Amino acid sequence: MTSIDHLAARLRAFAAEREWGRFHTPKNLAMALAGEAGELLAELQWLTPEESSRVMDDQNAGARVRSELADVFLYTIQMADALGVDLVKAALDKMEENEARYDAAAYRGSARKAPPLS
Amino acid sequence: MTSIDHLAARLRAFAAEREWGRFHTPKNLAMALAGEAGELLAELQWLTPEESSRVMDDQNAGARVRSELADVFLYTIQMADALGVDLVKAALDKMEENEARYDAAAYRGSARKAPPLS
Amino acid sequence: MTSIDHLAARLRAFAAEREWGRFHTPKNLAMALAGEAGELLAELQWLTPEESSRVMDDQNAGARVRSELADVFLYTIQMADALGVDLVKAALDKMEENEARYDAAAYRGSARKAPPLS
Amino acid sequence: MTSIDHLAARLRAFAAEREWGRFHTPKNLAMALAGEAGELLAELQWLTPEESSRVMDDQNAGARVRSELADVFLYTIQMADALGVDLVKAALDKMEENEARYDAAAYRGSARKAPPLS
Repeated sequence: MTSIDHLAARLRAFAAEREWGRFHTPKNLAMALAGEAGELLAELQWLTPEESSRVMDDQNAGARVRSELADVFLYTIQMADALGVDLVKAALDKMEENEARYDAAAYRGSARKAPPLS
Repeated sequence: MTSIDHLAARLRAFAAEREWGRFHTPKNLAMALAGEAGELLAELQWLTPEESSRVMDDQNAGARVRSELADVFLYTIQMADALGVDLVKAALDKMEENEARYDAAAYRGSARKAPPLS
Repeated sequence: MTSIDHLAARLRAFAAEREWGRFHTPKNLAMALAGEAGELLAELQWLTPEESSRVMDDQNAGARVRSELADVFLYTIQMADALGVDLVKAALDKMEENEARYDAAAYRGSARKAPPLS
Repeated sequence: MTSIDHLAARLRAFAAEREWGRFHTPKNLAMALAGEAGELLAELQWLTPEESSRVMDDQNAGARVRSELADVFLYTIQMADALGVDLVKAALDKMEENEARYDAAAYRGSARKAPPLS
């Protein structure tokens, strides 16, 4: 069993014991995920990009960032589980799509968006 | 190598080939992650919770939701990589914290938030 | 002076007194705005749509929702001020665009997205 | 009638003509608002804070940022309308709260968060 499958099973058991299953629709989980992503933003919003690169050096801020990122990850797993999506497979498919879409030479050093895939 | 380590390495190579490393500060990655979480919200915002549970039955909407969730996952991995956070370890720590915080009997069937850990 | 101009001026004075101006770049304000939008999501994430329509009947939850919505509004005003955007004019332009884009008869009762404007 | 009241009335008529009222629960509007805040993030995510301060100098990027900010504002107004919240009054109350909470001398030049109000 992979780490993600293990976490998904543990999250499922955690929710079942608390009878939280009915709350965990994809819609509600997407809101919870975005809410946690918002908490991550709040940790970094007043830092310069350079300061953000050193955020883990501060014990308190570092622990909060790690904790918020864990929340994002846990809701991502729960959402994939609720949707029946294989997260790693979906990520690999997306990597392939991105590799085709963003030609390395054409996009070198540029942050512009690629046109939609035809 | 776990699936997550594999994806992290592939994302690192992908960014390096395009010289995108300087864009990938924790601050910028948190914005990208929250932006993708926002796209996931947009896919589900006008659906009822019940409709959201069946979103994968619609081929087009299902593919979009899967793709947005993959984007969230990929940015979560990149962010953990940029911060030097072990994502699975952070998630396991958070699970333990949640198991201590949300007593199963006390929170059964209730969606209210637990008080902060003392 | 409109209410929005008054609030913008008061926010500017508030930030100036605290020497917070250097934090208030459009990038940082967008993060703060999205963070507050995330807190609003968190208040409503486990409610059904019907329950969310009655959230103001609960004194505590209602006060929190009102407060988060005020935060979103205040950061929206600060962001417009930092960018030199006339918020009301921008909103009126967008209304016109939406009225042209979403033909009333064609979109009646449908939540599907309009194709991009040509 | 203030600009906000005018926009709220026009949004209400726009939704009524398209029979979109049933979609506009506070829960759904919060999702739409956060989704638009996410689009705003996406416009600024790879810019440095300094570049973000000049984003309106670029005609295309500037128009997109203005348009996303308008979307955020329009959903904020719709949400306040759906909740029966007076947006300006709520913002003024929040300003007062912030003025009491963030003592000018104590928070000068500091971006740290104030402790919760007692």
